Amino acid sequence: MSKNTKPWIGIDLGGTNIQAGLINRTGKILTRYHTKTKVEQGADAVVKRILKLARNVVEEAGLDMQDVAGLGIGAPGTIDRTNGIVQKAVNLRWTNFPLAKRLHQELQIPILLDNDVNVGTWGEYRAGAGQGHDHMLGVFIGTGIGGGLIIDGKIYHGILGTAGELGHAVVEPHASLGRRTLENLASRTSIVNLLTQLIRSNHPSCLPELTGGDLSKIRSKVLAAALDRKDPLTEQVLTEAARYIGISIAGVVTLLSLPCVVIGGGLSAAVGKQWVQRIREAFEEHVFPTDLRSCSIVTSSLGDDAGIIGAALLAQTAAEESPN
Amino acid sequence: MSKNTKPWIGIDLGGTNIQAGLINRTGKILTRYHTKTKVEQGADAVVKRILKLARNVVEEAGLDMQDVAGLGIGAPGTIDRTNGIVQKAVNLRWTNFPLAKRLHQELQIPILLDNDVNVGTWGEYRAGAGQGHDHMLGVFIGTGIGGGLIIDGKIYHGILGTAGELGHAVVEPHASLGRRTLENLASRTSIVNLLTQLIRSNHPSCLPELTGGDLSKIRSKVLAAALDRKDPLTEQVLTEAARYIGISIAGVVTLLSLPCVVIGGGLSAAVGKQWVQRIREAFEEHVFPTDLRSCSIVTSSLGDDAGIIGAALLAQTAAEESPN
Repeated sequence: MSKNTKPWIGIDLGGTNIQAGLINRTGKILTRYHTKTKVEQGADAVVKRILKLARNVVEEAGLDMQDVAGLGIGAPGTIDRTNGIVQKAVNLRWTNFPLAKRLHQELQIPILLDNDVNVGTWGEYRAGAGQGHDHMLGVFIGTGIGGGLIIDGKIYHGILGTAGELGHAVVEPHASLGRRTLENLASRTSIVNLLTQLIRSNHPSCLPELTGGDLSKIRSKVLAAALDRKDPLTEQVLTEAARYIGISIAGVVTLLSLPCVVIGGGLSAAVGKQWVQRIREAFEEHVFPTDLRSCSIVTSSLGDDAGIIGAALLAQTAAEESPN
Repeated sequence: MSKNTKPWIGIDLGGTNIQAGLINRTGKILTRYHTKTKVEQGADAVVKRILKLARNVVEEAGLDMQDVAGLGIGAPGTIDRTNGIVQKAVNLRWTNFPLAKRLHQELQIPILLDNDVNVGTWGEYRAGAGQGHDHMLGVFIGTGIGGGLIIDGKIYHGILGTAGELGHAVVEPHASLGRRTLENLASRTSIVNLLTQLIRSNHPSCLPELTGGDLSKIRSKVLAAALDRKDPLTEQVLTEAARYIGISIAGVVTLLSLPCVVIGGGLSAAVGKQWVQRIREAFEEHVFPTDLRSCSIVTSSLGDDAGIIGAALLAQTAAEESPN
């Protein structure tokens, strides 16, 4: 097996789950495994679980670790890419953890670490809905709202490596603190909080019925079920969230004159195309100049796999750019 | 005089005035002239006035046109840089006007045309307050609010060439149309409109006295005079505008993880450092992550000269990058 055709391991490390795949050079998943992260067991235990998944996907393909070109991994939080360190990841309860070094010690293959949202954006750019657009924004809507930027065919990191964070930009300047940013107003967390509050103050909704009366059980799929039943409260709250997202995207596309935005994440996957259409409508109403309405606002085509595919393809690109 | 030490002509073409300078390679103004644009006389007359200024600045330096390396010009509106065409400039009443070609026919020297705000941003980056920051945002606050982006030491244009337009991003999603964008809420035009409206509905202010009762005479310097007299209405309206600007800048710095923002334009020059300090306070309150509070928010050091200096230095850089 010659070096430049070897597959790569891609890992998506989240606060709840770890996903792993063995990925070929065109972004196809050859084998895959996943497990719970179990953050509470500590960083060493999480590293062991990552290593086990990595070995599983390689063995499942009938290969040895020396048949693999390397490993790419996306982790939440602030990342020092050069040194492969997770600087701060609240979800993982990690501070300055040398993840790449730890993985390299065990696997003896090249390791590339980047932020999970950047990695997902790279997946969509290289093998998903953003293919062909050397300038694009990836927006991932779930528990929070993350964003990644591709500029000139590269992930744009900015000086602190935190670029793309449109979820933390203010969209309601006069709201109280904690209700001003896009993430405060349109993430699944904030949507569920608002719905819970409205239902508790007696706004009618089918959500109590769908959750057996336990509103803490509202997940993306429950919201989708409520939409299917045309629950007016859910529709209203989700429409307002879509409007904020569309306006935020319009601001980024106006600022950067972008040709493509890919929308992914758990919430958008669950609530479907009609919701993304509402995002697009708010985008078109507010983007400047109006010629930029031609910007493609598309849904993720890789879904949950954007992370493992993007991590593997990003590691591959990094190796091609600095071969040694 | 060897080719690579020749000076450049820089032109700043506005809807009201045209400024011209002969600029040396370090951004120093050797000679300068200006005149009224007189848009109403038509494009041919404007071209003649530009040519006259260009010849004036060269003659004043005791040089001939063949001693000049070329000419850079910044124009308002949408620009086709490759072909040197002003595609649409409302201020000039021009549509698809081949400005670079027209200037080249007469002067027989290389011509570079770009958007006026990009050119001003380039001036601040290469010879002004943004020096040393290969990633920066320029914000120019006057009749409107324009923005220019430097990414990786280059002007970032985006696919339609309109990048940087933060004035057209929405900052008040629930306001009525025409009052949603930063420019709608914080440009000199919108500040004057709001003050006029408030004074007409009997809010006390010293502005009627300062303008001899003619509120249409409120300019940046009148606002500065009202601030000097601690006029509460002017202070309140300008403080609110500064807050919108600071929040918008925070959004851009969060998105791009930028190390430097230069604030220029007529309004910021007139109303002074205290006002920029208020912009900085709103910025620091809203930028994410908080480490990005280290981003320099600085006032323009070139002022009105950013355009002519930037135009000349940008033409110089373009020539160095594609010599022929």
